[in-house]
Formats: sequence, structure tokens, C-alpha cells
Amino acid sequence: MEHVMRKIDINCDMGESYGRFTIGNDASIMPFISSCNIACGFHGGDPTTIWHTIHLAIDHQVKIGAHPSYPDLSGFGRRTMQMKLEDLKTSIIYQVAALYTMVKKSGGRLHHVKVHGALYNDAIRNEEIAMTILEAIQFIDPELVVFTLPGSIFYDLGIQQGMSMWGEAFADRRYHEDGTLVDRNNEGAVIYDAEKAANQVLEMVVHNTLTTLKGKKISIHPDTICIHGDTQGAVNIATIIYQKLHDAGIQVA
Amino acid sequence: MEHVMRKIDINCDMGESYGRFTIGNDASIMPFISSCNIACGFHGGDPTTIWHTIHLAIDHQVKIGAHPSYPDLSGFGRRTMQMKLEDLKTSIIYQVAALYTMVKKSGGRLHHVKVHGALYNDAIRNEEIAMTILEAIQFIDPELVVFTLPGSIFYDLGIQQGMSMWGEAFADRRYHEDGTLVDRNNEGAVIYDAEKAANQVLEMVVHNTLTTLKGKKISIHPDTICIHGDTQGAVNIATIIYQKLHDAGIQVA
Amino acid sequence: MEHVMRKIDINCDMGESYGRFTIGNDASIMPFISSCNIACGFHGGDPTTIWHTIHLAIDHQVKIGAHPSYPDLSGFGRRTMQMKLEDLKTSIIYQVAALYTMVKKSGGRLHHVKVHGALYNDAIRNEEIAMTILEAIQFIDPELVVFTLPGSIFYDLGIQQGMSMWGEAFADRRYHEDGTLVDRNNEGAVIYDAEKAANQVLEMVVHNTLTTLKGKKISIHPDTICIHGDTQGAVNIATIIYQKLHDAGIQVA
Amino acid sequence: MEHVMRKIDINCDMGESYGRFTIGNDASIMPFISSCNIACGFHGGDPTTIWHTIHLAIDHQVKIGAHPSYPDLSGFGRRTMQMKLEDLKTSIIYQVAALYTMVKKSGGRLHHVKVHGALYNDAIRNEEIAMTILEAIQFIDPELVVFTLPGSIFYDLGIQQGMSMWGEAFADRRYHEDGTLVDRNNEGAVIYDAEKAANQVLEMVVHNTLTTLKGKKISIHPDTICIHGDTQGAVNIATIIYQKLHDAGIQVA
Repeated sequence: MEHVMRKIDINCDMGESYGRFTIGNDASIMPFISSCNIACGFHGGDPTTIWHTIHLAIDHQVKIGAHPSYPDLSGFGRRTMQMKLEDLKTSIIYQVAALYTMVKKSGGRLHHVKVHGALYNDAIRNEEIAMTILEAIQFIDPELVVFTLPGSIFYDLGIQQGMSMWGEAFADRRYHEDGTLVDRNNEGAVIYDAEKAANQVLEMVVHNTLTTLKGKKISIHPDTICIHGDTQGAVNIATIIYQKLHDAGIQVA
Repeated sequence: MEHVMRKIDINCDMGESYGRFTIGNDASIMPFISSCNIACGFHGGDPTTIWHTIHLAIDHQVKIGAHPSYPDLSGFGRRTMQMKLEDLKTSIIYQVAALYTMVKKSGGRLHHVKVHGALYNDAIRNEEIAMTILEAIQFIDPELVVFTLPGSIFYDLGIQQGMSMWGEAFADRRYHEDGTLVDRNNEGAVIYDAEKAANQVLEMVVHNTLTTLKGKKISIHPDTICIHGDTQGAVNIATIIYQKLHDAGIQVA
Repeated sequence: MEHVMRKIDINCDMGESYGRFTIGNDASIMPFISSCNIACGFHGGDPTTIWHTIHLAIDHQVKIGAHPSYPDLSGFGRRTMQMKLEDLKTSIIYQVAALYTMVKKSGGRLHHVKVHGALYNDAIRNEEIAMTILEAIQFIDPELVVFTLPGSIFYDLGIQQGMSMWGEAFADRRYHEDGTLVDRNNEGAVIYDAEKAANQVLEMVVHNTLTTLKGKKISIHPDTICIHGDTQGAVNIATIIYQKLHDAGIQVA
Repeated sequence: MEHVMRKIDINCDMGESYGRFTIGNDASIMPFISSCNIACGFHGGDPTTIWHTIHLAIDHQVKIGAHPSYPDLSGFGRRTMQMKLEDLKTSIIYQVAALYTMVKKSGGRLHHVKVHGALYNDAIRNEEIAMTILEAIQFIDPELVVFTLPGSIFYDLGIQQGMSMWGEAFADRRYHEDGTLVDRNNEGAVIYDAEKAANQVLEMVVHNTLTTLKGKKISIHPDTICIHGDTQGAVNIATIIYQKLHDAGIQVA
């Protein structure tokens, strides 16, 4: 008998606008998610944007995470930078610290950390980077949850360290048989069709399976599902996923 | 009979280096002061510099303040920027928030806020800016002390708001008869001689008077004395002031 | 008998995107204009964006201008910064120099300079700033045309200096009786309706008159008409203006 | 019979200060060198600093090079960034273009390009990066000389492309037997003693040999010798090298 989860967490990156430069559709997507990852100023996210995103999340009772990045505004944090580990550590501490106090003084509580872009990709492959990030997070608060790819070096190292690691699955990305993501540059890697993305989420949440790019079913038990807020049709995808889950009796929470 | 203070606070701006760009002599000056104002990243102060400065201050039992600025790295925060008040407010909240958590998690406590450069000068003259800064500080923690020029709009507004305002006097600046500073660009405005700066401090602390540029004595009751750490001879000035105060039976604390 | 111009220049700010942060609709608007003002990296405009915008302009035989700004990415150059005049001068020289060579080596020729945002507003009111900008432009090439508000301090000073000053009128802004712009924050200051904007352009170009906010007709002889590319409906406005001018036998060139 | 060169080029990085952040001793070192590499704003070098450094070089009849970098001010261009090749290319074009026109309009001529920091190291090892840099330089002016490590991928590729490549040797670095540099982090990699550095230069220029870290003599024929301007004692090293060369009848030119 299959196990039907009654609840699932849906997370989305938010607060990435910078001054007059607008990215995403935060206000439109907020009603359909249960966790948000707020940019901290190093790849996007000026203080006013961060401020409004925090209050938007609190108003929608959405869990708040910090979304720190390499210091690379012109590259939107999507370029690996060979930082000294000490600089990486203090850089994450600074970013998470800013969000931590801003959220707390706004009447909320920082729930998690999800590192951004190239740092996300480097952390799941490089043990030194993974460990540095975990040390930075533990320095701020060892109770903070960490979102990352299940089965990665980063995930496993966090578990070893006794931290709360939430494995994340992607609504709009295709997978290989071994549970890794198909590279974004490969054909078929990204699901642009809202219905198909919603069906993938439903399959993951209801049946704990996933149909790979090659059509095989594999097992998956995500703690949270990531949706993207800055693609065309993002609001549509968010709405349809929310609706399909609701129709299946599953709460986004 | 004159009132001799037994203690005086001496503050200095710190942590203003940025990556490979070094400013000041933080480690050399720290032993001679009792309060430091740490840059928050917007005019100087990368995360690693901030980190080390916090730990240096804790090691020396020096009170820690946040030193937020206009967002202007290339101008070192010394240029007025006509920011929207909301952007100014969130900008200060972000900067102070980062320091607040970093200090707390390092085992210290953020004691005060002193705004930097052009923002310092704008706050003492412009009520809207002064009020915006006070709101930002109160949002973080209404117990935070605020360092500023005594008798200024900013100082008086803070007192009205019930905040702890510490009036600051300058060791190396000359004053007018009305207690305002001689403009930095005027001849004689800055005291470069360490002995003379130390004597001015001594006069302010022991006799609560000050000899103006024109040679008149006026009354002054500073809560804290600001010394500069980035001028040539800064370490020498700090040492001599500390020594002269010590010889006069006054503790820097 | 009225004088019908057979040609009019239409200019638009371009190349203001920054990395992943997209602003404007450059490719869609380029066919309908004859001059573009390309951001130089200080308020927007990363090198790849600048590069593609230059080539887009050359492909469309659109005249290329440099669009330098205060160094303020987070404020999009819309905040006055009290820069030292020397820093302002070298800042403009650097920005225009980068565009000058890039355009030349791409097979084009830099035609004009139009300063951006807060610097535009400061230049038309402040003689020192105006003079500093003119010196910077003359240093690069005294043949460069300068776009600005006709009748302003900046315009008049440029004429005195023997420079080619092109007076600019705005398609989507309302005017006072004295020919100055109604402040953007006042009701009715901005024309959002594409038809109305096109009619204002037509009136300016065909009849050399303008109907003020209060309904009075005043005389105007613009050398170039500015349209905005980053507002909602910008492409629509550009298209309609182009079409109406074409229908009236006036070439955009 | 040994071949004594009568002339040698000595180059030094310059113009790396940024606003109030000062690096190097440009004015003191300029008299002792024949080529300078001026920062372009991406790792250091604000417009006013660039401006003054150009004029200083012209006054001293020192050849001027552009010194472009990865866009990384907080890391001083010393961290590899995995930029898209197109972004790298336009980034170098932008930086060199700014210097090119600024130098030309100041009455000089841009002579060479030397890429900075991590980009220097990446270019000598990675063919794609090397090729991208060469394309950028050729776009600006195929006559520009390129300074790099002799025998590197970058050097050889430039030769193949028909460009003027100048092989550079370091006054204050130790070498391996195969002509590569001892890693900066290894003991003995850097020569801090001014006399020793000067002797290494003299040996390279007079005898075309070099004594490796392990004491073996190898052959070397540098086109230019790099000295560093931002280390302690930099001025002293520059002076002694210049004097020793002069005493040996060799002109720095």
C-alpha cells in the first residue's frame, strides 16, 4: 500500500530584485508556497527588497530562509568563485546574520538556509565547501534547517553533523536513474509545461516516485519541492501545482 | 570646585579595510580605546575584516558599535546620497542587523550605533534623516546607544525619543565658540600634533572645558571622545592620550 | 504658414540591463528610433549588454550615444551624489571612453552623450556640474553632440562653449507654461496613453507647439524627442509615434 | 661569449588604489620603471586614480599598459571566476577600451595589456581563456603588445596569432628547473631581500640565466622584468634594481 503524504513543503527563491532591477513575481507566488529563500544582498536583494519580502512572507505565514551567495552581483551568483574558505565562511555568516536579525525583529523566525546558484552546485560536490557552509550556519544557529540535494556530499555531511537537512526535489527538472539532475544545458532537462511539472510533483508526493528522462520510475522522498519564481509562466506553474496537490488532499505547509 | 571624571569612553572607527585594501591600524589602537565603531560593508568592511575586528574587540573588552554608511564603497561613504527615506531606513537596518547577530553569536553584545561619514553630517542637520536613522536603530533594539554630536538635531531628537544618546567630542578637531566643529577644510581645523590632541582631551575630561580655535574657553561634557585610526600618527595619538589620561588618574572605560 | 519638419530624431535609453537583471525592451524599440543612449556600467549596463546594444544599434543604423551616470548601481543612478568635481569629471571620462572605443572598434562612431538620471537633473540646474560634464566630454571629443533640456543652464553653457547641444523634448511628459517639466511626482505629469504621447510628439514636430498641462499652447523646437523604453507599453508607444510621424510624412532619422 | 643586453624593460602594476583605499607607491616607483600596467576599475582603480596614473606615466615617459581583471573588487581580482567566455571577452574589451581612449586623449598611446591576478594564472593554463583574452585585445588593437609568462599556453597562442608577446620574468620570485614559478605559498617562493632580487634581475639581464630555488642555473631571455609595487620595501627594491642595472651599463627603457 502506498504512503500518501498529507502535507508537503514547497519552496521558492524570493527577494532577488535589486533596486530598480526587478526579478521574479514574489507577491504572486507567495500564496502558493510554504517556504521562501530570501536573497541576502550578494547576488540580488537590496535592503528594501529584503525588508518587503520578509514582511510578505510573514503575512502569508510562509517559512523564511536565508539564500546566501558568492559575492557576485553582475553574475547573479551563478559563477563559481575560488574564495578562501575563511572568506566564504564569514561571507555566509554576514549574509545569514543580516537576515536572522531582520526576520526576528520583524516578528518572525529564520527557519532555514539554502545557498544560491554556483555555491549550491559547489557545496553538493566539494566537501571543504560543504563543511565551511555548515560551520557558518551552525555559528549562527545550529537549529537552522538546511535545504539541499538529497544524497549529496553536502546533505550527508550535514546529517553527520547532526543538523536538520531537508532533501529538495525540483518540480521543473528532469532526473537521471541515479537520482541526479539532468544538466540544465541538455535537451529535456527543464520542464516548461506547467501540467507536466505539476504531475511530476504529484507523483513525487503521492507515490514517492519519479519518472526519469528515459522513462524509468525511481524512488524519491523529498522533504521540500523547489519551484522557480523567475521563469516565464512561474505563477502559472505555482498555481497549478498548488491546485493539483489540493485536489489530491495534500496541504502545502 | 571642578568635577574630575574618573572614567571616560574613547571610541574609534574600525574594521574599514576591504579585501586587500587596508585602512587603519586596528590591532595597534584597540588597546587604547574603550569603544569601537565597526564598518558594516557599505563604505568598507568586508565580512572577514568585520569578523576579525569583532573578535579583536571582544578580546580587548572594547564595547562594540555598528558603523553603518551610505552604500558608497568608491566614495568611502563620504558623499551625501539623496536616498529615499525608506531605502535609508532598510539600509541601516540591514547593516546593523548583520553586526548585531555576528557580535551576539561571537559571545559579545552590540552596544551602540554611530553612523558614518556623510550620513553622520546629514543626520546632525536634517531632521527627517535623523528620525529615519533613529527608527532603524529602534527597530533593531531600542536599548542601543547612539553616538553623535551633542546639541545637534539628531542628538536632541534621540533624547526626545527616549533613547540613550552619547555626546561625542573630537580629540583632533578644533571648535567654534558655539560648540560646533570648524570645517575640516579650514586652516587649523584639524590637530595633527599628538601632544596637543591629548591636551585637548585632558582639558575636556578633567575640566569640562575646551579652548576654541580663537582661544576662548567654552564648556563641554562629552560622554565619549572620538579618535581617528586612519591618520598618520594615529597610533601615537592614541597612545599619548591614553597615557596622559592614565597619569591624571582617569580610566579609559 | 507653419513650418513642417521633414525629419525628427527620436532617442531612447538603452543597454541598461545588468547581468541577469533585465531592463527595457531594446531589440523591440530599436526599429522605431534614430538615436540611442547606451548605459556605461555605472547605473546599469554590464559589458556584454553594452556590446550587444552597440551592435544592435549599428545594425539598425541608429546613432549611438554614451549615457554616463553617477556610480550608483543600487540606486540606478537616480540619487544625487555629492561627488568632488574631479571625481565626477574622471568618472564621466572613464565611462564615455569605454563606449567611445567599443563603438569605434565595432565599426561605428560615438555620436553623442546624454547624462543619466540624477546627473541629468543636477546638470540642468548646477553650473559647476554642467561645466564639469562639458569638460569631460570635450576631453574625449569636442565634436560629440550633447543632449539635454533646451534653455537649461547646461544647454546654455554648452552653447557658450561652442559645443553641439541638442535640445530634447519628452513624448510622455507634461510641461508648464515656461517650458519646464511638470515634476514627475505631480498628478498628470506623465502621459501613459500611447495615442496622447504620439499626438504630443506630432504637435511638437509638425506645429512646433506644445499644449501645457493647463491647456495653453507654447512654442517648442526640439532637436530630438526622448521616449522611454522601460515603461509598460513602451514598445506600443514607440510604434504608434513612429507610425503617426510616418503618416504625416515625417522621417525618424 | 655572453650577450649583454644594453636595455631592459621593467614593468610594475599601478593605479590599483580605489577611492580612499590606497595601494602601492606609484609616484615613488614610477622613476625606476619603463612600463606600467594600470588597473582598469574591476579589481582596483577608480577613474580618478586611473587618470592620475596615466598622467604620471606620461610625465615619466613610462609605457602604459591596461591591466584588466575579473570583476571582483572585494577579492582584488585574485579569485578565479568561472565566467562565460563571452562575458570574459566583453569584460576585457570594456576595460581596455576605457584605458585606450583615456590614454590617447591624454596625449599618450596604449602600449600593452597585461591581465591581472587570477586571470593571469588562468590564461597561462587554459587555452579557451587565453584565446578569449587574445580576441578581446585584437578587437581593440592588434598592435597591442601582450605581457605574459614565456612558454605558457597563452604566450604560445599569442605567437601563433601573430601578436607581439613579451615574456615576463619576476624580480622577486623563485623558479623551478623547468622555468615555472615556485608557488607563492611555498617556502622560499618570494624574494624579500632587495639585494637578492636585484642580483636575480642582473643575472637574468646580463647573463640570461637564472639560479633556481634548488641552486641550478637555467637559461632565460625575458623581454620585461616585473617588479611589485605594493609590497613592503617595494620602493627600495625598485631603486636598488635600477641602480645595479645602471652600474652595469644597462638602461631601463
